Amino acid sequence: MNIDELRNDTEGCKSVIHFNNAGAALMPKPVAKAVRDYITEEENYGGYEVADSKINELDNFYNSAAQLLNTKAGNIAYTVNATDSYNRALSSMLFKTNDIVLLSKNDYPSNFIAYLSLQKRFGIKIELIENTATGEIDVDDLEKKIKKFSPKLVSVTHVPTSSGIVQPVNDIGNIIKNYDAVFLLDACQSLGQMPVDAAATHADFISGTFRKFLRGPRGAGLLYVSDKALQSGYEPLFPDIRGADWITENKYNPVTNAKRFEDWETAYALMMGSTAALQYALNAGIEAIELRNTMLNDKLRDDLSTFCNIETLDRGKKQCSIITFKAGNKSPEATKKFFRDKGINIYTTSKTSAQIDFEEKHVDWVLRVSPHYYNTEEEIDIFIEAVKSLQALH
Amino acid sequence: MNIDELRNDTEGCKSVIHFNNAGAALMPKPVAKAVRDYITEEENYGGYEVADSKINELDNFYNSAAQLLNTKAGNIAYTVNATDSYNRALSSMLFKTNDIVLLSKNDYPSNFIAYLSLQKRFGIKIELIENTATGEIDVDDLEKKIKKFSPKLVSVTHVPTSSGIVQPVNDIGNIIKNYDAVFLLDACQSLGQMPVDAAATHADFISGTFRKFLRGPRGAGLLYVSDKALQSGYEPLFPDIRGADWITENKYNPVTNAKRFEDWETAYALMMGSTAALQYALNAGIEAIELRNTMLNDKLRDDLSTFCNIETLDRGKKQCSIITFKAGNKSPEATKKFFRDKGINIYTTSKTSAQIDFEEKHVDWVLRVSPHYYNTEEEIDIFIEAVKSLQALH
Repeated sequence: MNIDELRNDTEGCKSVIHFNNAGAALMPKPVAKAVRDYITEEENYGGYEVADSKINELDNFYNSAAQLLNTKAGNIAYTVNATDSYNRALSSMLFKTNDIVLLSKNDYPSNFIAYLSLQKRFGIKIELIENTATGEIDVDDLEKKIKKFSPKLVSVTHVPTSSGIVQPVNDIGNIIKNYDAVFLLDACQSLGQMPVDAAATHADFISGTFRKFLRGPRGAGLLYVSDKALQSGYEPLFPDIRGADWITENKYNPVTNAKRFEDWETAYALMMGSTAALQYALNAGIEAIELRNTMLNDKLRDDLSTFCNIETLDRGKKQCSIITFKAGNKSPEATKKFFRDKGINIYTTSKTSAQIDFEEKHVDWVLRVSPHYYNTEEEIDIFIEAVKSLQALH
Repeated sequence: MNIDELRNDTEGCKSVIHFNNAGAALMPKPVAKAVRDYITEEENYGGYEVADSKINELDNFYNSAAQLLNTKAGNIAYTVNATDSYNRALSSMLFKTNDIVLLSKNDYPSNFIAYLSLQKRFGIKIELIENTATGEIDVDDLEKKIKKFSPKLVSVTHVPTSSGIVQPVNDIGNIIKNYDAVFLLDACQSLGQMPVDAAATHADFISGTFRKFLRGPRGAGLLYVSDKALQSGYEPLFPDIRGADWITENKYNPVTNAKRFEDWETAYALMMGSTAALQYALNAGIEAIELRNTMLNDKLRDDLSTFCNIETLDRGKKQCSIITFKAGNKSPEATKKFFRDKGINIYTTSKTSAQIDFEEKHVDWVLRVSPHYYNTEEEIDIFIEAVKSLQALH
C-alpha cells in the first residue's frame, strides 16, 4: 500500500485527522467526484434520461458489490442504508405470536428496537445468545438455544457500533445452517474493513452501508440475499414496481433476483458514488486494508495503555478498527469538541446504543475512535498527545 | 414570473426540451449546487462532522416542507421517495384478516402491489371506489362504501402517474373525516405543481417526492403525518434510533413528532438539495406555477387536437401537467428515442402502471408529456412539429 498516494486521493486528509470512520469515513476523490458529476449530468439532461444512458455504469454497482461479498450480482440489492436493508429483510418474514428471534447481545440498537416493535405488534419473543468469557457470541449457547427455542430467526451484528469486537460469523453460520432458522447478518461496521465472504457466513441476508468503512456517500446501502432465500420466495412486505410486476388487477409477480427488495426510485448519483467506493476498496485490497488497520489499531490500543494508562473497553479474541474507552471528565459533546478543536474527528457512543453491553461494562458512554487504512501512525501520535492533555484537565 | 430568469436558473434548458417533469424534472442551479457543495464539505471534513456543523441549515428542510403543505415542521418526516413515505405510513397500521382497504382505481401501481402483498400476508380485502362519468373519484360512492365496509384505510392518489386527472382530495377528505378510517394521500405527482394544504385535505398521511414537480434531487421524499395520527400513536413497523429512543433492554419510546418515521442514516446532501428545491418553488409561488402550467397544458392539449388530430386520454374536470395520448406506430422505447433524437425528453407509461385505467381506456401504453412552468410555448410548438412527423411515418 502506498500511503502517500492513498492520502493524496483523500482531500479531507489535508484538513482533519479523521478517526470517525465507523461514523462516516472520508470519501476518496473518485467517490465524491462520481456523485457530483452524476448530479451535473442530471442537471443538464434530466434524471430518467441520464439513468437510461448510463445503464451499464449503474449496473456495475451490482457486479462490484458481488465481488466484495464473493457472490453474484443477482444476490445484491441497492438500498439507502444498513437499517433499511436489515428492515427490508425482516419485513419478508411473517411473524406470529410466540415466534422466537435469537439475538446477539451486541446487536445494533435499531435492530433491538425493530424486534421490540415486532414484539408489541405480533407478540414475538426475544431470546439472547450468551457471550463467552472473552466477550464474543458463545456458539455452544447459540446451538443450545436454537435446539431449545426453534427460533424463526437468528440476528447477529458482525461488529457492533459501540465496541471493536468481531463476532465469529462463519462459525455462527456453520451452526445455524443445520437448523431451520433464517440467519440475518448485520455487516454495517465490517464491510470495507475486513473480508466478508457471503457464502462462508451461510447468512440468508447480509445488510451493509457505504458511508462507513467502505468510504462511500451517506444514504447508500446494500442487501445481500442468498439464493436459498430467493428460491424460498422471501420478498419484502412492501414490494414496489421495481421489485415486482403488476400483472393484473389482482396479481403481482416479484422479480427473480435480489432487486425484489429495491424501490423503483433511487438516488443514482449516490449509487455511482457507491460503485466508485467499492472499486476503490477492491483496488486497495480488503486483505491489505485489514492488515494495515490491524497495525494501526494495535498501536492505538498499545499507546493508550502505555502513554495514557487507559485500558480500552473492547472485548473479544479478534478486535478491529473500533476502539472504545473512557477518558477525561468532560461531557460527551464537550469531549468531541475538545478533539475537534484540535482538528481530530472522534465520536462518542452512549448507552442508548448499547443497553446490554454498557450495563455489563458499567459505563454510560464511551469515546469511540475508528481509524482506517489511510490514517497514519503520526496521526495516532498526535491523537495520543491530545488524550494526554484531556486527561490532564480538571 | 420572469421566464427568462427561470430558464437561466436551469442549466438543462440549454441542452434539452424537457417534457418529463412527471418522471424527474430538471433541477434548477441552486438545487444541484446545494447537493454538490454538501458532498464537497463531507469530502473535506467528514460526514458526521459536517452534519453537526450544519444542524440549522438541515433543520430548514422541515420548515420549508411545512410551509409548502401549510403545516408545522413537527408534522414532516424526510424520506427517500414517495413509495418509501407511503409504505412507512402503511407499516404503522396493524392489518388483520378481512380488514378492508378502500382504493381509488387510479392509485399508483406500487400502492396496489403493496395492498396485494398485505392481502397475501394478512388476508386484508381490497375494495375500489367507483369513478364518476367524468373520471374522478365518485365521492357519493366513497361515502356509500365507507358506510358499507367500515374500511380501516382509504388510499387516494392525488394525480396518477399515468393520467393528468386531478382528484378532488379536499372533497374526499371532507367525507372520510366523518368516519373512523385512516386517509392516506399519495401526493407524489401533485406537490410542486399545485397547492396542497395538508389540513384542508384532512389526510392522516401525505406522501411526496422531490425529483418530480418539486425539481429536487432523485432519492428524496417527504411524509406528512397529521397531529391526529401522531397523537393516536401511529409509528412505523420498524422504528430505528432516529425515530425512537432505546430506553432499557425491553423498552423503546418513539419520538413525539413525525421524525419517528425517519431512519438515522440520511443522505444529507440530498436533504440540502431538497430544501433548496422547496425554497425555489416557494419563491416562484405554487399558485403562479399552477397558473402557468395550466396555460401550457391547455395549449399542448389544444395543439395536439388542432394540429395532430390527437385526443388526449386524460379524464376529469380538473387536469394538470400530465398529458397522455397515443401517437405513431413505434414501440414505446422507439417512440422515446424518436423524440430524444430531436432533443425532446418525453416518457411512455405502460399498462403495468395502470391496469384498471388502461383497461378502461383500451390502451396498452401511452405517451406521457409533462411540461412545467420553466417550459415555453415555443418548446410546445417544436414538440407539436415532432408529433406531426412521428404521425407521418409509416
